[in-house]
Amino acid sequence: MRAMDFQPILDEIDDELRPMLGTAGGTVARYIPALARVSPLQFGIALRTCSGETAAAGDAAVPFSIQSVSKVFSLTLAIKALGEAMWDRIGREPSGTAFNSLVQLESERGIPRNPFINAGAIAVADRLVSLGDAKAELLAMLGRLCGEPIHIDEEVASSEADTGFRNRALANFMKAFGTLDNDVDEVLDVYFHQCGIAMTCEQLACAAGYLCRDGRHPLAGTPVLSKAQARRVNALMLTCGTYDAAGEFAFRIGLPCKSGVGGGIVAVVPDRLTLCVWSPALDATGNSLLGRRALELFVEKTGMSVF
Amino acid sequence: MRAMDFQPILDEIDDELRPMLGTAGGTVARYIPALARVSPLQFGIALRTCSGETAAAGDAAVPFSIQSVSKVFSLTLAIKALGEAMWDRIGREPSGTAFNSLVQLESERGIPRNPFINAGAIAVADRLVSLGDAKAELLAMLGRLCGEPIHIDEEVASSEADTGFRNRALANFMKAFGTLDNDVDEVLDVYFHQCGIAMTCEQLACAAGYLCRDGRHPLAGTPVLSKAQARRVNALMLTCGTYDAAGEFAFRIGLPCKSGVGGGIVAVVPDRLTLCVWSPALDATGNSLLGRRALELFVEKTGMSVF
Amino acid sequence: MRAMDFQPILDEIDDELRPMLGTAGGTVARYIPALARVSPLQFGIALRTCSGETAAAGDAAVPFSIQSVSKVFSLTLAIKALGEAMWDRIGREPSGTAFNSLVQLESERGIPRNPFINAGAIAVADRLVSLGDAKAELLAMLGRLCGEPIHIDEEVASSEADTGFRNRALANFMKAFGTLDNDVDEVLDVYFHQCGIAMTCEQLACAAGYLCRDGRHPLAGTPVLSKAQARRVNALMLTCGTYDAAGEFAFRIGLPCKSGVGGGIVAVVPDRLTLCVWSPALDATGNSLLGRRALELFVEKTGMSVF
Amino acid sequence: MRAMDFQPILDEIDDELRPMLGTAGGTVARYIPALARVSPLQFGIALRTCSGETAAAGDAAVPFSIQSVSKVFSLTLAIKALGEAMWDRIGREPSGTAFNSLVQLESERGIPRNPFINAGAIAVADRLVSLGDAKAELLAMLGRLCGEPIHIDEEVASSEADTGFRNRALANFMKAFGTLDNDVDEVLDVYFHQCGIAMTCEQLACAAGYLCRDGRHPLAGTPVLSKAQARRVNALMLTCGTYDAAGEFAFRIGLPCKSGVGGGIVAVVPDRLTLCVWSPALDATGNSLLGRRALELFVEKTGMSVF
Repeated sequence: MRAMDFQPILDEIDDELRPMLGTAGGTVARYIPALARVSPLQFGIALRTCSGETAAAGDAAVPFSIQSVSKVFSLTLAIKALGEAMWDRIGREPSGTAFNSLVQLESERGIPRNPFINAGAIAVADRLVSLGDAKAELLAMLGRLCGEPIHIDEEVASSEADTGFRNRALANFMKAFGTLDNDVDEVLDVYFHQCGIAMTCEQLACAAGYLCRDGRHPLAGTPVLSKAQARRVNALMLTCGTYDAAGEFAFRIGLPCKSGVGGGIVAVVPDRLTLCVWSPALDATGNSLLGRRALELFVEKTGMSVF
Repeated sequence: MRAMDFQPILDEIDDELRPMLGTAGGTVARYIPALARVSPLQFGIALRTCSGETAAAGDAAVPFSIQSVSKVFSLTLAIKALGEAMWDRIGREPSGTAFNSLVQLESERGIPRNPFINAGAIAVADRLVSLGDAKAELLAMLGRLCGEPIHIDEEVASSEADTGFRNRALANFMKAFGTLDNDVDEVLDVYFHQCGIAMTCEQLACAAGYLCRDGRHPLAGTPVLSKAQARRVNALMLTCGTYDAAGEFAFRIGLPCKSGVGGGIVAVVPDRLTLCVWSPALDATGNSLLGRRALELFVEKTGMSVF
Repeated sequence: MRAMDFQPILDEIDDELRPMLGTAGGTVARYIPALARVSPLQFGIALRTCSGETAAAGDAAVPFSIQSVSKVFSLTLAIKALGEAMWDRIGREPSGTAFNSLVQLESERGIPRNPFINAGAIAVADRLVSLGDAKAELLAMLGRLCGEPIHIDEEVASSEADTGFRNRALANFMKAFGTLDNDVDEVLDVYFHQCGIAMTCEQLACAAGYLCRDGRHPLAGTPVLSKAQARRVNALMLTCGTYDAAGEFAFRIGLPCKSGVGGGIVAVVPDRLTLCVWSPALDATGNSLLGRRALELFVEKTGMSVF
Repeated sequence: MRAMDFQPILDEIDDELRPMLGTAGGTVARYIPALARVSPLQFGIALRTCSGETAAAGDAAVPFSIQSVSKVFSLTLAIKALGEAMWDRIGREPSGTAFNSLVQLESERGIPRNPFINAGAIAVADRLVSLGDAKAELLAMLGRLCGEPIHIDEEVASSEADTGFRNRALANFMKAFGTLDNDVDEVLDVYFHQCGIAMTCEQLACAAGYLCRDGRHPLAGTPVLSKAQARRVNALMLTCGTYDAAGEFAFRIGLPCKSGVGGGIVAVVPDRLTLCVWSPALDATGNSLLGRRALELFVEKTGMSVF
């Protein structure tokens, strides 16, 4: 299957789902004004193959708040810098509880279950703070990965900080257990800013490209992660990447995915391509309702799945 | 039994327990330097009857950090000001979990189980912040209750703030659920300061006097709480006042008690007297080891118990 | 206050509450047919003082299923036989969770928090099985305590067994942890039968009499429990006797109480009297709705409370 | 890569791991005598490709107790018979807690998180009981899948029943919530017997063959499951198949796996082959210590992984 074959598939998916915008249910995240006012009537899809061919449909060029999708990139940056030591006080198991639960942290003495629940991503941010200017490094890496400068929506970052009491609770709780090395406010500043990064489907499909290419840079071909490291990030995305619906995603879609409450989902077909879908209205599990449906259609139409 | 009869009893208790100082086990609280350096070789006991007679033995005139004993007084201040509305978002049931657990808060949507676990006391502090200058009010009330000016040990308060990550987690978690009305830092400032109040056994035995006198001021006789309110504070002390050892205290001692990690315990014999014991070395449940033993001896010798 | 004074008080309570039968809300326990068909339009109250005077009003002579009230008597039998060893694998702390929760058992390795939650009462039944014919012993003790033969409603016992899946889960779970010594079915047979004991308010007020008399038999005056043991059963009733409303009972009523889903509640005024109220309709916490109200009225009218 | 290439790879793995038998640590399951007396000094590995070629090394022809590996086959039988209705009261998410935890069941009202934790497998057994003679059906299916009669070790099944208090707790707990339709003892009889099925690595590698062939029978080519169903069983194995180490297996091995406390692990390389490893000594997570190492070596040597 060559890349050019994908454009009609993405067009079909866009054709099928666009009429459902506004009628399929779901609601945009409402906890901060900047997200609450995003129109739910948007849907975009883009992909980029290992050989560099691209396809896109719908609102694939509209920037959106990547939110938890950023956790893939902050994790990548931390693994790149720290190797196996990255995992010293961060687990790798599915959590079986809500993404922002404190219960698991209490019973497991402050060690977050994996780097994709909020507590785990805050612990990753803590490691990045120890290494230098985390926000600048993250933006720089993303810029290199998609060949374009990437920015943070400061209004979003600032709103996250104003309302992020539960994340502040998680961070202080981990600090109490010794899981964080740095000042809580400094760590949260990185975390809230990474949530506020704005990117398009096209940019994300390109930026995540190292995950389908054994860790090699999607544009430059140089190593971003080792082959084993890239494979492992994919494994984490499949088991832990979509909140408490990871089993359901594996069951119905069967691809490593990472979603965010901005409505974006990045998916990986190992050795083939990376894909990004976006639609702001979320289902009850906090994943994009039509984004999820788009991935199901993509898998149905292409037969691509790791299983 | 007249008050003069109590002096020999307290002397006997002091005689029996003093030789155990340093050999009975237990350790002083170590989480802040100001508490860690308190000599464990101290024991004091004091009481004051409803009719105003007093007795004291040992280190009853040495000031110590009252810590969680302060929760009785902050609760009193809040009930006095708010009446039944005080209980709007604060429960009255024993917690069955550690005093600083977040699990209960998560499963009960941010409503603390009772005002004596840390979360509950922080919620009480929040109500006091809404009412005015909480620290000043609390010190003023304590000063009136024992007829002497009462101070906060600023070093303790400041250390509490520096190390109180778990309390900060609890406060932010409650803020996320809407349990707190005020700024988290402002609320915690009150909470950390009330923990740093320094008082002696004699002062505490006097200050708590309204609890054995149907709510009437121990010195002035004017109402501090209504009869029903005073009775209810006693009920809370008995069911929730000694961390996760409340059942054991009820079982072995049978009096309403409130303990603190500074090693103090205030106890109430309704219609008879209030009692304060202090010894800094704590047992595994965070209660004063010899303080607890002293209360058991007192109950054995006097037959006083609510059961 | 002499016993003859109580009759008008009980009459007043009956007068106030009887009009609320059928209108005050609440529902009878529905999990077995024999309980579901009990008319909610019944209310009884009876007391017996330390000196043997009695008073009663309403349906005080109607037998009802004592259900969890039996836990007081099975505990008494076990303490009497085993002394302190009774507590080897049974705790004494309030549970902070539902009366039939398995969560606490899992986190505390099969040790029930106290003898009044179902798991704890099953563990007590296990000890009684080790000692002999538990059902016969329990009935014999109750018969002696109230001077009349006491029977088990076999239909209730049999229905309990047919529907008691959660209790069967608790028992097997404890067996897995080594908390039970005997065959699970044999232990549950005792437990289900004790729940099916039928008694009247008058009988229960008399039978519990040792709890207000420092452990002495209400009729014979001989020791049933030691003074300390009786006091401790009272302490457990106050902290753990009314499911997850123990704090609320202490707060509003302030007496040691033990309730059952048959709608009965036994209360103790130490050194004064024992009291039994009964009305089948239960509130959301599983306690008799009007029974609870009756105890509040009794406390209001008499000023009796341990606090 | 042709099947003949696999034999040297399996030989190499056997050569590398055999010297570690008895020195690598781990312990055989000890909860029943029949498992406790299995020699830990055994290691077997076998595979069968989609095209029917086979390879094996070590103790690949020694029968062992398949234990929880049987959950894959009972699930297959239930899905085959019930289709989507199979999932009515059984979830598909990783549990994040121990395989035999009751906590999750309590908080999620008796619905097991997935069919591979014990509660879930018991619920699957309940569905099979509704459909007919579950034990006979399961043995018949396994016999057809590997072309040889398969037997149950009755000593193991009987020991499971004698010691299975926690499973009995799980079953009764689910019965209390209405998750099971049939008699608890009848359901557990199926469950305990399926745990006692004895098979060899060679037999299991063949029997699981439909999972790498889009659901088609490994020998006959007829459909066992639909393509989507087979893919979904693989997804469940990857996210939930290895107790609380599923994330670690995905991270290090990256293949759908199902393990049992008998020391067996079945793994699937979609579209390529199925693999079975066996070594009785278990690691702390209850998975075969050398079995796990063997799978890591296999993935290293072949580059096969779904990621």
